[in-house]
Amino acid sequence: MNYTFSERMKNMNGTATREIFKLLGNPEIISFAGGNPAIECLPTERVKEITADICSSPNFARVLQYGLTAGFPELRELLCKYVETADIYGTKTENVLVISGGQQGIDLALKAFINPGDVILVEDPTYLAFLQLANSYEGICKGVKANDDGLDLCDLEEKIKKYNPKMLYCVPTFSNPTGKTYSVENRKAIAEMTAKYGVIVIEDDPYSKLRFKGEYVPSMKSFDKAGNVIFISSFSKIISPGNRTGVAVGAPEIIRKMEIGKQGTDLHTPNLSQMITYEYLRRGYLEPDLKKAVRIYGEKKGAMSDAIKKYMPEEFRCTDPDGGLFIWGSLPERIDMVKMLPEAVERKVAYIQGSVFYADGSGTNYVRLNYSYANLSQIEEGIARLAGLFKEKLAK
Amino acid sequence: MNYTFSERMKNMNGTATREIFKLLGNPEIISFAGGNPAIECLPTERVKEITADICSSPNFARVLQYGLTAGFPELRELLCKYVETADIYGTKTENVLVISGGQQGIDLALKAFINPGDVILVEDPTYLAFLQLANSYEGICKGVKANDDGLDLCDLEEKIKKYNPKMLYCVPTFSNPTGKTYSVENRKAIAEMTAKYGVIVIEDDPYSKLRFKGEYVPSMKSFDKAGNVIFISSFSKIISPGNRTGVAVGAPEIIRKMEIGKQGTDLHTPNLSQMITYEYLRRGYLEPDLKKAVRIYGEKKGAMSDAIKKYMPEEFRCTDPDGGLFIWGSLPERIDMVKMLPEAVERKVAYIQGSVFYADGSGTNYVRLNYSYANLSQIEEGIARLAGLFKEKLAK
Repeated sequence: MNYTFSERMKNMNGTATREIFKLLGNPEIISFAGGNPAIECLPTERVKEITADICSSPNFARVLQYGLTAGFPELRELLCKYVETADIYGTKTENVLVISGGQQGIDLALKAFINPGDVILVEDPTYLAFLQLANSYEGICKGVKANDDGLDLCDLEEKIKKYNPKMLYCVPTFSNPTGKTYSVENRKAIAEMTAKYGVIVIEDDPYSKLRFKGEYVPSMKSFDKAGNVIFISSFSKIISPGNRTGVAVGAPEIIRKMEIGKQGTDLHTPNLSQMITYEYLRRGYLEPDLKKAVRIYGEKKGAMSDAIKKYMPEEFRCTDPDGGLFIWGSLPERIDMVKMLPEAVERKVAYIQGSVFYADGSGTNYVRLNYSYANLSQIEEGIARLAGLFKEKLAK
Repeated sequence: MNYTFSERMKNMNGTATREIFKLLGNPEIISFAGGNPAIECLPTERVKEITADICSSPNFARVLQYGLTAGFPELRELLCKYVETADIYGTKTENVLVISGGQQGIDLALKAFINPGDVILVEDPTYLAFLQLANSYEGICKGVKANDDGLDLCDLEEKIKKYNPKMLYCVPTFSNPTGKTYSVENRKAIAEMTAKYGVIVIEDDPYSKLRFKGEYVPSMKSFDKAGNVIFISSFSKIISPGNRTGVAVGAPEIIRKMEIGKQGTDLHTPNLSQMITYEYLRRGYLEPDLKKAVRIYGEKKGAMSDAIKKYMPEEFRCTDPDGGLFIWGSLPERIDMVKMLPEAVERKVAYIQGSVFYADGSGTNYVRLNYSYANLSQIEEGIARLAGLFKEKLAK
């Protein structure tokens, strides 16, 4: 039988992400491609302890029964306090939805707002899976220029006027893929401008807790007076990606629509996943564990920066992030990272080609390098291998 | 700010399902409204044991890291064998997708195939959450007539010719809401007819393992030669709804599209949920536990049938299911179960009005009664309360 798939799915092949996972499966390849947290940073012992305690609790039968779509009530209560760590105050449970990872929050926000043909503004470059998801709702992504401070406010206003977008998507802290952080003034200005023009903002915040240097910056949501910002945070990078939990914070009307959307897609996040996250936060494990994790990520990022200095050709330019998981680099425009990837993999080193992060598929001379997954010696060796390949290409 | 939600979500209010959960929260109300498995049938001790074993396994760190979208490989392998219990043979891992509950399988199938305006045929009446989900994809549901044997094949062919539908959705074994089971011949005929006309079938199978009388019937998927049937099964009713796991089986092209859809919505089902289901099946706990569960459901169903005979007015007609969770009843057409519901709740008994199961909102004189959640004495008392109300209404 020939299958006629829906318009939204016809061109969805999901290749880039799948390749990443495949590469991680081959232990010989040093992978800078994924976005996995470091295994040594995952709180394995804590989660074991918590899970064992949940198992021996007299209410265990509750874990097995259906739960509420919006989430385990105690977790929602606790998350109202938790988001104060991003300077979001006055949150009530009606503002909070427990989600099965940050990805689901993005999906539900798109589901709630995007009609086919609606324009969504994104930072150029932005999170590749967002571009794919927006595509699955037949939204049209348009890139907004960015600078060291965050989004280029003139370009943002121009594009809002030009496209009348429904939504702006951004990762203001330790952006994926650039590792960049928007300044306080930039956040405030974006919150005000989008409110003025009635644009919904998805503030995707999976990385902000992973800061190893520089000053804390409050969330964009903390400057939201109009109720147009949806703050989406994930516990994947700080507790466990395999546990699939996160939180969306927004105006009650928006959260309610997202909740209805979630009812249709998975009814609720598994109870055990929610309880593990709840207990982890309630027992105060996050702060001490983050201290350790941030030290490790800082070391790894330092190792990558050092190796870049040591091995990379002088034409290689890159960011110097204060946190998160990624360094964003480039070679002169004539160098095509897309074409080069199979050769890199042959030399047993992997990266993600920058072009997949651009709404228009440009940026072929860019590369995203993840430093959280490999160990210190792999980082040096992998950068050395990559630098060798880059030098050969530059010499041609 | 005024929010302009997407067309798909504008009219989605999700009220019916939410009310169910609210009613279950009040212990004074005897609820026949939900579809929760009996608490005493949930394998609490087994899941505790399994979870404790997973916690003490040397590979526990793996539980915390990202997993593959299609599912934990060992679980997919095992599911290829598991579906042989529904007479589905020759299944390879490429035919199998692990899903976060049956609901997600339905959602992903709709996502893969349905464009706004596409017609979806459903049995009249059918699972209410399917109607809501189809609505969220802007699909148009058209009801097909049914008889004791399954779907009315003449009406099915007529509607296929008339509407050129993209899809047929049905629950052939212990249907929700009627509790009815399609005959073997009916299944075969539906599989052949839909293949002939190129209609995709979602065979939703959450209840077939809960048979307390009558003969086993193979799945509709077992008669699928063209690859047009997607078999969706859930572990919610037989292991745990709170664990959110299920399985979709279909042609590799379809499963691949659904996998890409899943990548966008939750990346993967939580590892711990998958491993619990895997270990539960692998250790052979399902068969003995089902024996116990089926005995309990048989008793509860018997108690409800007996109470109906004892208390209900003679005008009350109802089904006599061989398994599953529901009895489907009716009073003469002049009786409106929608309007009566608040009065029933006042008398501390709840049901679901039949109209929510009809594609066109008809069937206002029907009622769905769940017998799995309440205990035996509650079942008798609840039916007595309801019968009192019905008699009063009939007397008017």
